[in-house]
Amino acid sequence: MRSRKRLLFNAFSMNCVSHIHHGLWGRADTRQLEYTSLDAWIDLAKTLEKAKFDSLFLADVVGVYDVYKGGPETSISEAMQIPVNDPTLLIPTMAHATEHLGFAYTGSILAEHPFNFARRASTLDHLTDGRIAWNIVTSYLPSAARNLGFNDLPKHDDRYDRGDDYLAVLYKLWEASWEGDAVVRDRERGIYADPAKVHTIDHHGPYYEVPGPHLCEPSPQRTPLLFQAGSSDRGREFAARHAECVFILGSGRRELIADIRKRAAKHGRRDDDIKICLGVSLVIGGSEAEAQAKARDLEQTLSLEAGLAHMSGHLGVDLGDVDPDRPISDFEFNGVLGFLKSFAAREPDKTLTFGDLARRQLSGNWIVGSDEQIANKLQSLGEDGADGFNLVYATTPGTFVDFIDGVAPILKARGLMQTEYDPGPLRQKIFGDAHLSDRHPGAAFRRI
Amino acid sequence: MRSRKRLLFNAFSMNCVSHIHHGLWGRADTRQLEYTSLDAWIDLAKTLEKAKFDSLFLADVVGVYDVYKGGPETSISEAMQIPVNDPTLLIPTMAHATEHLGFAYTGSILAEHPFNFARRASTLDHLTDGRIAWNIVTSYLPSAARNLGFNDLPKHDDRYDRGDDYLAVLYKLWEASWEGDAVVRDRERGIYADPAKVHTIDHHGPYYEVPGPHLCEPSPQRTPLLFQAGSSDRGREFAARHAECVFILGSGRRELIADIRKRAAKHGRRDDDIKICLGVSLVIGGSEAEAQAKARDLEQTLSLEAGLAHMSGHLGVDLGDVDPDRPISDFEFNGVLGFLKSFAAREPDKTLTFGDLARRQLSGNWIVGSDEQIANKLQSLGEDGADGFNLVYATTPGTFVDFIDGVAPILKARGLMQTEYDPGPLRQKIFGDAHLSDRHPGAAFRRI
Repeated sequence: MRSRKRLLFNAFSMNCVSHIHHGLWGRADTRQLEYTSLDAWIDLAKTLEKAKFDSLFLADVVGVYDVYKGGPETSISEAMQIPVNDPTLLIPTMAHATEHLGFAYTGSILAEHPFNFARRASTLDHLTDGRIAWNIVTSYLPSAARNLGFNDLPKHDDRYDRGDDYLAVLYKLWEASWEGDAVVRDRERGIYADPAKVHTIDHHGPYYEVPGPHLCEPSPQRTPLLFQAGSSDRGREFAARHAECVFILGSGRRELIADIRKRAAKHGRRDDDIKICLGVSLVIGGSEAEAQAKARDLEQTLSLEAGLAHMSGHLGVDLGDVDPDRPISDFEFNGVLGFLKSFAAREPDKTLTFGDLARRQLSGNWIVGSDEQIANKLQSLGEDGADGFNLVYATTPGTFVDFIDGVAPILKARGLMQTEYDPGPLRQKIFGDAHLSDRHPGAAFRRI
Repeated sequence: MRSRKRLLFNAFSMNCVSHIHHGLWGRADTRQLEYTSLDAWIDLAKTLEKAKFDSLFLADVVGVYDVYKGGPETSISEAMQIPVNDPTLLIPTMAHATEHLGFAYTGSILAEHPFNFARRASTLDHLTDGRIAWNIVTSYLPSAARNLGFNDLPKHDDRYDRGDDYLAVLYKLWEASWEGDAVVRDRERGIYADPAKVHTIDHHGPYYEVPGPHLCEPSPQRTPLLFQAGSSDRGREFAARHAECVFILGSGRRELIADIRKRAAKHGRRDDDIKICLGVSLVIGGSEAEAQAKARDLEQTLSLEAGLAHMSGHLGVDLGDVDPDRPISDFEFNGVLGFLKSFAAREPDKTLTFGDLARRQLSGNWIVGSDEQIANKLQSLGEDGADGFNLVYATTPGTFVDFIDGVAPILKARGLMQTEYDPGPLRQKIFGDAHLSDRHPGAAFRRI
């Protein structure tokens, strides 16, 4: 039997009360209300590390979902990604309580100047001994842009052009400013670093002018492991160039995976230079019946209102006027509602309402099953091209604990989940090398 | 005997190798090389808390000192505030390891947009249970401005005007956006917060347009305790308006203290609304002779080169051409070199050289003495108007440990240093109330 490739497992969370499956925060079996407690985050990190998860992946958004019904009221009432606290400030404490777990965090190129962002990322990489990943986002909420000094959200493609320039600054700071042997720490001669080996970067780009040098000495990974989640044409192109891990949440996966790999190849990158991680929502039981009962119980408390507010923000279209009881036969699922078509197509015989569809979207189209069924499903997604998963919680740490207790042992027995951590920084654990691959565009900025 | 007012004690440090007294990082009796180790920072925080320090005060600079000899070479070679890592990322871990110690951090209004800055500060205040202070700086290094997207450093007074607008945004986000009873966490009805009590701020200022609302629910202090260190005319005015603690490093203290209190009174603030903390460098021994021997030993390893690079950056004048062996009688200590006049005046009989003066500046004009002598000196500075001190280290934690073992017990016996922490957030420990005083300008932004 040929040895199977191991899959990556990341826990998906956010420094807020309600992340994806809204309406559940008030349940007694979830710790979402403890989002400002470092103890709760430390417990989660230790739980994940004990089970050999690759990382905890923290989403973020710097803005409020205010499209639904023309304002932020529903989001605020439902704690739907507001309040939302800074994710980076959780990481060092969790890293100090663990030894191997990685920490991916989301950061928008609109939120911070690259010179300052580069320093913060390097500081995190130092403090975690090289266990950080950055999920590059270009923002999609007009609210974020307005609050951050952009009159309005820059146009979609323009945001990616800005992203390319932002990353050029970062690569130069992280990879080119300090040579590998610049830091000598010579106590006898009183020389900490050799100034001849610390360089300005003199970046003059279309968006940024940054002379440098970088303020930090090289951290274990230099460039943090790079995640990206683009799915538009320009977003895929951006991911194919920069991402080492691509995070896909939603449908149309096979085509998207194939397309990103094809685009990456044009940039001289190989299939195994990019790991594809699928977002999956799992409801797990010892038996299928138990799992189904659990799903029905969760669905009782899901909030349709919050789901529609979330969706409206993503789409940029106010779904507040749509009657949830209208049958879907009334709709043409084109344009922005096109993503609902696949849900409708799956159950052609039923008289579904718009609310039914929205609820399915809200539950993240979750996969419900026994430990073995879930393990089989993940294995089959792996055989279909996925390299790993971001596990979306319904309750936290409940969903992760269910996975760890029931599914993980099966996956480990099949060689699909690691049973020990490899040594070294996060990139080394995943790709075998602490530093960017020579085929990555960031490597081109290195000094020879 | 009337009860004496207790003084504040803050340890002054920075997330870098060499902070103030340069050239000492290579000594065996200092942990400066461990600046990327969370364990070293946790040890320091625990040591300070055990001795009932009020806070650990972290300096910062987002740029490199590159004026001396026309470039950053000396700074890089001497680790003179480069490398310099982000200070905020150290704080949650130290807070988790302690219960009462405060954490002041320095942040420049040029480094980050106020909308994002406000969220980061609120996150810190949540994670530390209200134990943070922000030292407001407006940047003085042209290198910082150039790297952060300003073509050059904005003019001095303009930076303070920008600072006023920046703080107006912050006060509105922290004090006015979320009402005190906005967060209800009603599990039964599924309501986290009452949208009618969460407000946009609709700020239209000369520098910033920020609609809001704030992304964070109210943290224990809302506005972090505010430190400021302005000494210019405009800087004093800024401090007199905004600062709750003023940090003074250098000479001319009496006049400066009186002037800031006078200006504050014009804004309707009382003398006891503002605490004045003096930066002091202490070399402490069991006896005076022991302290003097310690000072001579430290002076052996002080680096004049690094000191001149630091001074050149502060002054904006390259001191690289000045011959350190020239007697000071050759100089007119006017203009940028005026600050050296007080050093020269103190020892009129000696034939001092420029290098001698620079070395005194470099040693922070340290106070050398026995435990009792140091305690007397601090008491007398307190009687002269100081409300507390930022202790500058020569070696870390050595300087702090010397103070804790020898001086602190004397001060505590005299009622000049707290022996127990008061309960509550940092501002409550110092001013008796967790929130801004009604006389502070930030309070004017509150909703009634």
